Amino acid sequence: MSKSKPRLSRGTRDFGPVVVSKRNYIIDTIRQVYELFGFKPIETPAMEQLDTLMGKYGAEGDKLLFKIVNSGEFLNKSDESAFGDKNSNKFLNSISEKGLRYDLTVPFARYVVMNQNDITFPFKRYQIQPVWRADRPQKGRYREFYQCDADVVGSDALLFESEFCNIIDQVFTSLGLSVTIRINNRKILEGLSEASGVADKFNEMVVCIDKIDKIGKEKVGTELTALGINESEVNGLLDLILAEKTNAEKTSLLEAKFASSEIGKKGLAEVKEVLGRLPENMNNKVVWDVSLARGLGYYTGTVFEVSANDTPMGSILGGGRYDNLTGIFGLPNVSGVGISFGLDRIYDVMEAEKRFPASVLAGPKLVFINFDEEGMMASMNYASTMRKAGIACEVYPEAAKMKKQMKYIDQNGIQYAAMVGSQEIADQTISLKSMEDGNQQTLKIEEVIELIKNNGHASRNK
Amino acid sequence: MSKSKPRLSRGTRDFGPVVVSKRNYIIDTIRQVYELFGFKPIETPAMEQLDTLMGKYGAEGDKLLFKIVNSGEFLNKSDESAFGDKNSNKFLNSISEKGLRYDLTVPFARYVVMNQNDITFPFKRYQIQPVWRADRPQKGRYREFYQCDADVVGSDALLFESEFCNIIDQVFTSLGLSVTIRINNRKILEGLSEASGVADKFNEMVVCIDKIDKIGKEKVGTELTALGINESEVNGLLDLILAEKTNAEKTSLLEAKFASSEIGKKGLAEVKEVLGRLPENMNNKVVWDVSLARGLGYYTGTVFEVSANDTPMGSILGGGRYDNLTGIFGLPNVSGVGISFGLDRIYDVMEAEKRFPASVLAGPKLVFINFDEEGMMASMNYASTMRKAGIACEVYPEAAKMKKQMKYIDQNGIQYAAMVGSQEIADQTISLKSMEDGNQQTLKIEEVIELIKNNGHASRNK
Repeated sequence: MSKSKPRLSRGTRDFGPVVVSKRNYIIDTIRQVYELFGFKPIETPAMEQLDTLMGKYGAEGDKLLFKIVNSGEFLNKSDESAFGDKNSNKFLNSISEKGLRYDLTVPFARYVVMNQNDITFPFKRYQIQPVWRADRPQKGRYREFYQCDADVVGSDALLFESEFCNIIDQVFTSLGLSVTIRINNRKILEGLSEASGVADKFNEMVVCIDKIDKIGKEKVGTELTALGINESEVNGLLDLILAEKTNAEKTSLLEAKFASSEIGKKGLAEVKEVLGRLPENMNNKVVWDVSLARGLGYYTGTVFEVSANDTPMGSILGGGRYDNLTGIFGLPNVSGVGISFGLDRIYDVMEAEKRFPASVLAGPKLVFINFDEEGMMASMNYASTMRKAGIACEVYPEAAKMKKQMKYIDQNGIQYAAMVGSQEIADQTISLKSMEDGNQQTLKIEEVIELIKNNGHASRNK
Repeated sequence: MSKSKPRLSRGTRDFGPVVVSKRNYIIDTIRQVYELFGFKPIETPAMEQLDTLMGKYGAEGDKLLFKIVNSGEFLNKSDESAFGDKNSNKFLNSISEKGLRYDLTVPFARYVVMNQNDITFPFKRYQIQPVWRADRPQKGRYREFYQCDADVVGSDALLFESEFCNIIDQVFTSLGLSVTIRINNRKILEGLSEASGVADKFNEMVVCIDKIDKIGKEKVGTELTALGINESEVNGLLDLILAEKTNAEKTSLLEAKFASSEIGKKGLAEVKEVLGRLPENMNNKVVWDVSLARGLGYYTGTVFEVSANDTPMGSILGGGRYDNLTGIFGLPNVSGVGISFGLDRIYDVMEAEKRFPASVLAGPKLVFINFDEEGMMASMNYASTMRKAGIACEVYPEAAKMKKQMKYIDQNGIQYAAMVGSQEIADQTISLKSMEDGNQQTLKIEEVIELIKNNGHASRNK
């Protein structure tokens, strides 16, 4: 047995009690809102067949998949010639057939294809599970992290785009964060590439426009020109993207540009429909940002992105519509649309803005001090009664020195120390000491339960 | 891109909405009870360094670890001579340094050692996460499955053993299952091996006794004799293990046997203390079973096992005390005790006994039929109001044929179809049709909310 100092695998994290409670608070909020909108949970396994995963995330993505070595005497079937050539990639095919999931979207597509006969479409599912990527770890980038996805597949109705804006609004309202929801439509970007005469360079144009926040207007202009767009067109594009314009102004500019672009017109109509159907009572703004592209991805229609208004943190949610996700598994023409909350970044924003309510950290309210066997037995029965009333409590496990017991209570942030000595046993009472103000009172068990329950309410109302 | 029919990796499972909801019901019940007893959640990463995992589960366990191939050009550092020898095990060391966690206990031990300066002992943690084992899949045995563990480390107080019985009782009471909690103490088995003159064959004796349910009394007797225990001792042992005896009878028999076995006496005292401190109001029986051994394991004191009374399913919970878990990572003398609920088997028992309450499956209560744009917009605003009141509902996303919309409502088990036509818009009402009895009524939104909320209560009280 190794006695070396143990360590975490690079890019992975342990979560202690406080962090788990805070993460679960965010996850539960997202889950509740998803369910209010009729989304249903599914879970897929951590391990997928490599042929399910490979080729779905581009060449770079293939490299970032964690691959699992086949069990047993795997070398018996290994590729000797690839080994001789030191061709790691080719050799890998012969010793590994499973990998860890890279996102929740491809496993979901697999799930839909495998269960297509049992699913009623439109199928609204949510899925909150970890994913793994063999990225180089750096600040804010981990090799294991949670995704919190919701998708609807089997309908091209644009109502869902508006509903997702509503979901996003409701989640961040519940979390107490002020955010901006930006939307756009990939068809508008396609229309712009057509109108600019570079339809064949759509991807390059999108990648270029996507960088505008990072590299600035001037450099993007230079790159767009390099793609073959003439200078006045480039200036028109940059003006459209950057200048403060109302939605009506953007619309009329684009209508003019899209006179002969069917796809552009379609994108414009879609954005109009989505924005026109937002519910009345949203707390956060939905902004139409013509530069929003969401990378290359598989998106074909509406795209979403959310950023926090008061804490610079980049994108804390992404999503969009894709027209053919399940096509990769042989089931064509299933349109879908979905969003994915970024748990780690939302967590960081919540911390920065101090939005976690104190109740998130609610541990046990009370610990029974352990004086002797008789007091402990009485305490255990009281504890049992309290727990049945829904109050978390503990009995200190042995008659240790008072100092040690009080230290335990103190370091665990417990509200009350309860004492059951011989007098209390005779009187059927409990001496309750508040750790906050040191006040001590002698109460019946029912009174203790009532006090703690009311306390809870009082502090929540603060 | 592969268009081949996608499939699951062997031994893994997808969980659809119904199954996820039922699993979460069990998990949430366990979590709530753990928290009532003052246990706090932690989470550890799926991937651990192989030197954290290897050598902790025996030679067989090492083989069952899923190992992850190093990223990049891993062949550059690979062991050429091991490859030449087709020594898969040795070669693996040169191309893999990470594996998937095999249980939650070893990662917890690592966590405690790495965080020992920040932890207040006794440290009560729970952890509910999946683990992975490269076992040959078979009925009821999966390669990915959840463990639901709670452990206390840093105290040898026997109070915790009694508390775990209490926790077990409370969880199964909440789940509506009738179970038997069996306990024993490894020190008693050690005492028996001493008293039988085979102290040097303790492990063999334990393995043999552990099989008594499977291979029967006679064969165990033959094996015990083969270990070198004389016939009258063997008969005495078998009688002690199998005959119906009161705890007092077992105690006096063992006291006689342990006249010169200190460890046996200690085990006997511990069992007595644990049983003597059970709370008064438990619903399930705690039985002292002298044959209970819990395999070879790392247990050194009390052991626990739980079986369902009304459904044969083997053990649905296991646990026990271990004296030196963190010693493997260089932190000696940390005693711990813990239990692990077997989610999959508990699920199967719940299904067999039909114990899942109907409320577990509560999907949306209501779907708004989609007639036209105007009705849909009104429906969306109503839906928004209902969700803010905590009622899950949906708006059908497009003005599809009524038959299609009703099929969606029917197949999703929705309770009410809501209709907002031009008359309803004019009157600010909703026509509500019960899918159960076909009754239709025209109501204000507030009345719909009240009706559904009361419905929910009524059905919960049934």
